[in-house]
Amino acid sequence: MSQKSPRNTGVLGIGESAQIGEPRPSTLAAGKIELGLARKLLEQLGCDDVGLVLWDDQRISLGTKNPAITVHLRERGCLYRLLANPDLHFGDDYTVGRIAVEGSLVDLLVRVGRIKRNGTGSGPLQTVYARWMNRPRPNSLKGSQENIHHHYDIGNAFYRLWLDERMVYTCAYFPTPETGLEAAQVAKFDHVCRKLRLRPGETVVEAGCGWGALAFHMAEHYGVKVRAYNISREQIAYARERIRAAGLEDRVEYVQDDYRNIEGTYDVFVSVGMLEHVGTKQYPELGSIIDRVLKPQGRGLIHSIGRNRAIPFNAWTERRIFPGAYPPTLAECNRIFEDSDLSVLDVENLRLHYAKTLEHWLERYEANVDTVREMFDELFVRAWRLYLSGSVAAFLAGNLQLFQIAFARGDNNDIPWTREHIYLSEQGIGDR
Amino acid sequence: MSQKSPRNTGVLGIGESAQIGEPRPSTLAAGKIELGLARKLLEQLGCDDVGLVLWDDQRISLGTKNPAITVHLRERGCLYRLLANPDLHFGDDYTVGRIAVEGSLVDLLVRVGRIKRNGTGSGPLQTVYARWMNRPRPNSLKGSQENIHHHYDIGNAFYRLWLDERMVYTCAYFPTPETGLEAAQVAKFDHVCRKLRLRPGETVVEAGCGWGALAFHMAEHYGVKVRAYNISREQIAYARERIRAAGLEDRVEYVQDDYRNIEGTYDVFVSVGMLEHVGTKQYPELGSIIDRVLKPQGRGLIHSIGRNRAIPFNAWTERRIFPGAYPPTLAECNRIFEDSDLSVLDVENLRLHYAKTLEHWLERYEANVDTVREMFDELFVRAWRLYLSGSVAAFLAGNLQLFQIAFARGDNNDIPWTREHIYLSEQGIGDR
Repeated sequence: MSQKSPRNTGVLGIGESAQIGEPRPSTLAAGKIELGLARKLLEQLGCDDVGLVLWDDQRISLGTKNPAITVHLRERGCLYRLLANPDLHFGDDYTVGRIAVEGSLVDLLVRVGRIKRNGTGSGPLQTVYARWMNRPRPNSLKGSQENIHHHYDIGNAFYRLWLDERMVYTCAYFPTPETGLEAAQVAKFDHVCRKLRLRPGETVVEAGCGWGALAFHMAEHYGVKVRAYNISREQIAYARERIRAAGLEDRVEYVQDDYRNIEGTYDVFVSVGMLEHVGTKQYPELGSIIDRVLKPQGRGLIHSIGRNRAIPFNAWTERRIFPGAYPPTLAECNRIFEDSDLSVLDVENLRLHYAKTLEHWLERYEANVDTVREMFDELFVRAWRLYLSGSVAAFLAGNLQLFQIAFARGDNNDIPWTREHIYLSEQGIGDR
Repeated sequence: MSQKSPRNTGVLGIGESAQIGEPRPSTLAAGKIELGLARKLLEQLGCDDVGLVLWDDQRISLGTKNPAITVHLRERGCLYRLLANPDLHFGDDYTVGRIAVEGSLVDLLVRVGRIKRNGTGSGPLQTVYARWMNRPRPNSLKGSQENIHHHYDIGNAFYRLWLDERMVYTCAYFPTPETGLEAAQVAKFDHVCRKLRLRPGETVVEAGCGWGALAFHMAEHYGVKVRAYNISREQIAYARERIRAAGLEDRVEYVQDDYRNIEGTYDVFVSVGMLEHVGTKQYPELGSIIDRVLKPQGRGLIHSIGRNRAIPFNAWTERRIFPGAYPPTLAECNRIFEDSDLSVLDVENLRLHYAKTLEHWLERYEANVDTVREMFDELFVRAWRLYLSGSVAAFLAGNLQLFQIAFARGDNNDIPWTREHIYLSEQGIGDR
């Protein structure tokens, strides 16, 4: 996995010519107008502990002379690109090293996130441009495969460097903020299973199973049979190997196929971290699929990144990291349920748990950054650092939410009387 | 309170001429076409244990000769009205006694509710007509006062006959289905207070406080100060009297005014059973009011009847019982929060708890029905029996939901880490 190749850079889609650390020399010092524009950028940020260093080494800050965070714009073009479309170009310029950050990248991005939510950071033209750049890629069957391949098939070895031992790439559940990541991922599985009130002998279908750990956990600890779908071949291969090694292959079937091709009927439908890739246009179809595969007394749970307001993912994230992804609002999620007479029973927002999860990932990523650099290159290292940091920041600033939505058929009265069972006994989980 | 007067009938808006038990004689026996139409009605119901008895004593049923439920149509017109607009006319004809039901009215209405949800019960013309009949009455400041007066100012003595001792006219929370009504209303208060994590010394504003029991409970058991708004003068008068009697008038201020006129800022915003009367057009305005009155670290809770899909209340309920009322979907509720950057943290659907609450109310109502008849008249007795029975049925059939939505400002990170605190100690509630 350690050879470098042009393909690696291609993973990010920035283009072959981009190189790290070689900003084009700017022949001219920053003029008065440019200094004014730079100052305006800082004013939009609205905090006096961030400073700028321009391509000609001029320093600008609104407050203290020693700001906590310093952003280096190493080319004149960075300034103009930031003014035109900060969402996209900060990411690209940071990735190739034309922008550098001294101090905490996460803290800087929390500040950026806060101004973006206040709506002071962009004019109408910027908004239109951002939306266009940000248009979701098609989620046709083929489009989905390409989008998922882009993100999930860049190598299990890479994800193994910074995910937990079970390879869980979704928000964990921390009973306390001090819980470790491995324990928190298991706690998340149990949290989901308790919400679903899994009973031994029941059947579960999972849409978008990642590396298969939730299905594994359900089969191992709750005595259910699971059929788990995923279109990422690397993830499915990993999941199958793991379930065989544990001798549980008669209880979990991993299917490399799209959720739209789910067959059979089940007591439980579960989907953790797939809805982000479904596309709101497909939500009623997802609802009708759930309607088709769920038994009359069935119930389900969808776990997804979301928003308070309908805004696309950050343009850079959607372009470079997660093509086709979109975080829905609760109102948009309702489209899944409305037409299929499914009833939302319980919604929990675990936003701060995703911030905590990502902090763990970022810490592990940085601890293994030399290996990442060997596997790919410096561009990749910086892009993923930005992606992980930006995600921590988005959940901390409240720009992203994490919704767990439990539901059942609208006329099913065999639903939990209260939610007490989720919390009553910390130890007595499942059939362990 | 026991004198009968034309005004009493007027409360229901059916008209002065309506009298009980005197159906106009139908000179002709039911013809072939009418028998066919009656049979079609039963087929729409889709169950073979409901029978019809027509105005000429002809009996029709699809299955057994001794159906569990028999519906008497005592006039030819009942049949045609039911076919034209069952939602409205069943209620009116039942109220005046032109329709009578042998067997369980609730069970009949659950069956009706199930077909309505399946969408087989009405054609497009019926739908348009129902929607028009069903158009929400205006919720301007003045319109709201008229609508609220219609329902809530018909006399505290009436509600005292069948509500719990604290006069709580919203869904209770039953820790177990066996919990009594009085205990379940207190448990609901505590459930709400725990979700809001009330701390001694905090300030609370309540929008739509009914007879004031939640505000009373918060002040008595959680050491908070509450300002509680309601436009119903009879309810406010009752609440003020009760808080004075308890010597807690320095901790709760009951204000007879519209929620739109709330002044001041508070740690907590709470509204239990008011949103049904707000009207979806006013939701963004409600959001901006919450935004205006909530402190930066504030949080809130809205408790409301709702729907899985956007459908108005049953036409009869909206016309005769709850003018201007509408049960929103979660998607519609989101309009409260979206534009004001409020973040939904927790949604709990307590549908079956409202069915249980209403069963208690209906039982107490029937136990005191002679007193109701003395206060009003037989029309009123039958209308409220139908309203309470229909409401039990709607929650049992899954046509109505009860949403408790907890929220905070979008950038507030001082939010509960988990929901464990709501459930952990049954006893250790508040500062008791």
